Parts: sequence; C-alpha cells; structure tokens
Amino acid sequence: VTSQPPFKRIALIGLGLIGSSLARGIQQLGLAEVLVATDASAEVRARAVEIKLADVVADDNASAVADADLVIACVPVGVSGVVAESIGPHLKPGAIVSDVGSVKASVLSAMAAHLPDNVHFIPAHPVAGTENSGPDSGFAELFINRWCILTPPDGADAAAVEQLTAFWAALGANVEIMNAGHHDLVLAVTSHLPHLIAYTIVGTADELEDVTRSEVLKFSAGGFRDFTRIAASDPTMWRDVFLANRDAVLEMLGAFQEDLSKLTRAMRRGDGEALFEHFTRTRAIRRGIVSIGQDEAAADFGRKHAALTKKAE
Amino acid sequence: VTSQPPFKRIALIGLGLIGSSLARGIQQLGLAEVLVATDASAEVRARAVEIKLADVVADDNASAVADADLVIACVPVGVSGVVAESIGPHLKPGAIVSDVGSVKASVLSAMAAHLPDNVHFIPAHPVAGTENSGPDSGFAELFINRWCILTPPDGADAAAVEQLTAFWAALGANVEIMNAGHHDLVLAVTSHLPHLIAYTIVGTADELEDVTRSEVLKFSAGGFRDFTRIAASDPTMWRDVFLANRDAVLEMLGAFQEDLSKLTRAMRRGDGEALFEHFTRTRAIRRGIVSIGQDEAAADFGRKHAALTKKAE
Repeated sequence: VTSQPPFKRIALIGLGLIGSSLARGIQQLGLAEVLVATDASAEVRARAVEIKLADVVADDNASAVADADLVIACVPVGVSGVVAESIGPHLKPGAIVSDVGSVKASVLSAMAAHLPDNVHFIPAHPVAGTENSGPDSGFAELFINRWCILTPPDGADAAAVEQLTAFWAALGANVEIMNAGHHDLVLAVTSHLPHLIAYTIVGTADELEDVTRSEVLKFSAGGFRDFTRIAASDPTMWRDVFLANRDAVLEMLGAFQEDLSKLTRAMRRGDGEALFEHFTRTRAIRRGIVSIGQDEAAADFGRKHAALTKKAE
Repeated sequence: VTSQPPFKRIALIGLGLIGSSLARGIQQLGLAEVLVATDASAEVRARAVEIKLADVVADDNASAVADADLVIACVPVGVSGVVAESIGPHLKPGAIVSDVGSVKASVLSAMAAHLPDNVHFIPAHPVAGTENSGPDSGFAELFINRWCILTPPDGADAAAVEQLTAFWAALGANVEIMNAGHHDLVLAVTSHLPHLIAYTIVGTADELEDVTRSEVLKFSAGGFRDFTRIAASDPTMWRDVFLANRDAVLEMLGAFQEDLSKLTRAMRRGDGEALFEHFTRTRAIRRGIVSIGQDEAAADFGRKHAALTKKAE
C-alpha cells in the first residue's frame, strides 16, 4: 500500500549535522514529494549535490522556500532572525515554518518578527546530536527515540502543530509540547550547562603549568575523555546558544556553584559520609536514564575492547 | 612452545572491578601457576568461588598472601593501610607488593609503614575502569591500550620494577614510571576533577525546583547523560580518592574556577569571539585523544542507533 507523502514540498535551510540528518531521513522515508535544500556555504551546497542530499539544491533561501509546504531552518540560533528575514516575503501562504534551534524564546521572537501572518510558525528542537558537524556528519537514524520539543506560540494552528508532530514522529522522535521559556530552562540544565562545564574543564586541562598536554591526553581514560566529546561540539552553534540563553544558563550555573561549594567543603573537612551520600544518589540518576532508554546500559558507553592475546614468545 | 608463568603464585586482595578484571586476565593468559584471591566481603568470596575467579579463594588476607610472589591490593585507597597491616607479617621474603589505587602519595606512606623491609613495594595505578563495580563487572580486556603508572619509591629494586612492568604489559597496558606526587597532580586533572564536576552537576540537576527529575532524564541526550556515566562510579572508591588527594584536587579546582569565571564573563558581556576561540581550541584536544588511541573516533561514543523504518500504514 503506498500513500501520499505528508508534504508535497519540504525546504531545508542549512545542511549541518541536523539539516543533513533530516534530509537523509526525509528521503529514506519518502516524507516529501520534492525535497529542496540550501546552505549559506557554496562549498556545502556543492557537496549536497554530490552526495544527493536533496532533489533540488537551491542557490539561496528565497528560491529554496518558494512553494514549500514545510520550511525548516537548520542554522545556528544566532542567524535565525536573518534567515527568517530572507524567506519571509517568499513563503507560500499556509506553509509551516519551523527550526531546530537549541534555544527557543530568543529564536521565537527573532524569527516571528519577519514572518507573514499567513504562515504557521512552530519552533522545534530535536534534542539529539553528536560532536560532529557538516553535511557528511548527518544520518537518518539520529532522531530515533530522542525527544523533539515543539514550542508553538499562543494561538498556533492545532492542525499545523499536529502535522509537524507527525513529521517528527515519522523520523522516530517522541514529541513534547512546551512553552519556550520553560524549554530554555530545561535545556539550560540538561544541555547548555554541561557543555559550558565541559568546555571549561577541557580548556583548563590544556593550560596547566605542572601537567603537560601529552600527559593529559595519555591519562584521559581516567574520566577526562568523556568530557572531550561534548567539548568537541560545533563552536559556532554553541557560541550562539550561550549568547541566546544567557539568563537561564547563569541561573543553572548559580545552582551548580552552590553544590560544588558544598562538595568542596565536605572534602576540605574530611566529611566522607557527605561525599558517600552524594555519590550514591547520583549513581541512581544514571540508572533512571538507562531505564527510560535515553542511554545504553553497556559499561563505558559500550566502547570496544580488543581481545587479550598471549604475546608471541 | 610453552613457558613458565612469570609468577608461581599471585594473590589478589579485593575483587571489585579492577581485582576481578585482573583475575580474569591472569587466568586467561596463564600469568600465575596458582592464583589466590580474597575479599573483605563473604558474599563476594562466595561469588568468586561460583564464577571461578581464582584457583583458591582464601578466607582472609593473611592466608591469601602466604607464599605469594606477587600480591596486589585492589581495594579503595582508604583501606590500603589496614590491608598492608593485615598482610605485613605474612609476606614471603622477596615478594612484590603492589596496589591499583587512584592516589599514590598517601597510599605509599599508608602501606609502606606496615610492610617488612624484605619485600619489594611498588605502587601502581592502571588508568582504566568503567562505571560498574563488583566481582561480576570485571573483564580481562579492561587494561588493553590503557596506561598503568608505577610509582616505585626511591631505591626500589630494578628487577622487581621490571617484573611488574612485564606483568602489566602482558595484560595489554602501556607502563609509565612517575613519582607519586606528580602522579597525584596528573590524575587530579585527568580523573579526579572530572569526577567531582560530574558528581556535582548530576546532583544539581536532580535538585532543581523549576525543572523536574523526569524532564532531566527525558532530555538528557542534550549532553547531560555523558556526565551521568562518570557520576555512577563506585561511591566508596571515590569518597576515598577525594579525601586522599584533596590538595591536588583543590589546586585543579582553583584553575577550573578561574577559567569558568572567564567564560561566564564572556557570556555576560556577549563576547562571542572569546567563546568561539575557546570552543575551537577544546575541539582540537579531542582529536588529540582519538589520534593516540585513547578514545574512539565514532560519533557519540559509537552509541548504537536503531534502523529507521516506515511505520505500518
């Protein structure tokens, strides 16, 4: 049984990790009759043609969105306003316009200002990613069993929200509806603060006087290397996230600093009981994440190990 | 061609992750004619018999080390002194005594005080592990391509150091010699500080008023879940590490706090350039770790993804 694709024409603006993953998923599942894509970089557009990321690779945003029923801006949040400005006058009446940005309140206001009243603007954030970026880093399975948060503004069209929900569900995501401000607070703790901390500690380790960089790299399996994956994330995307969600990140940072002081004080005082109690509590939280399928149970993230063999004698 | 095992009798005290991994590796490679093991917990000893972790499971430390040529204490660093006291009078003259503790200066002095002059005491630290603990969590391949740091005291017997080096090399480890104080500084940054930070942030996320625990778990794929693996490490082991290596950890924490202030200030001021420069630098450090084989290049630690399939219609 074949059925009509849910959208006649989908336009993707930006072909980084998220955009190119969407492109692959849309093509693999046949979610659009025609998939159009574009990117600000001529090099990326050329690469998109080469690896067939879309049916049509457009030269600019205006032509990309013409006649599209669903337009998704997959760009760093700092340029979402500029992108909205470039597409506003060219959108098809009734089109759904969305994004994938990690911050929602600032994106919502930056984009809404440039969009006509006759389109449905529904911001979205798929909570998924890897440390890699660019058109070659995407893969169709990225969104499976991950959450995609929609933050429709007050009075958003229910049918449009439903269509976008079905789109993300088809890609394997679980969809949650939230208001933009609450989204930014939740993500400040589950994503932005962890990135800030990881970026900090990796930088710290690299600048010490008493410990060489070579020592840091060699002995990183003691824990440090887990932080480097996050601290290898796309610098442009993350610069924009911290500038756009500053207040929520600072609020979470305040809570973190209080807790760090508490643990430091316990360490100074030799209060082993307080440390033990804290470490036992945090262990339970990982079990919770594994039990709801948001991480693997395999030890050490399932990193592979070579086989142990006797040396030749 | 068969050859003599390098040690006639090896005794392991403690059968947690490291001890039970050693037991499996020693047996698999035939590194001892007889492997004796014991543990402070009767339950663990019974389990060791059940899963055949050693040729002999001894009831106490004194009988475990009798006639052993190599004795390795695989216990939380806080009890290393007590363990040394319990085995001191029962050691065979000429035996090598070692450990696997994550802190070396304090262990060295705690154990040395109780060991007779006629044994070779050579502390060691295999920089390897997972978030799991207990006799069932070990595996023979744990040490492959990981570093094992030996911290022989001044005047240590060169032949004994060489024998212990060959032992760890047989298990797949790269061996490095270092003085105990420098070891503690290096590990403070590559292991202890990352654990302290991870334990803190996971605790912070669990105690927020505005964001529920269920939200933290659901949206953890944004970065938070990477921290939870480390914060799920053995509470007893880590309590002891922070108490035993307090000064070095506090020194590294000071450097971390300065850097965190710098990044926070850049965020407050909207200094995108400073953020971008920092994030670009830290990205390079992960490449260094992957290029020397201390982590996998696979995106997202190589976490598995289900296949994307069209829903039934």
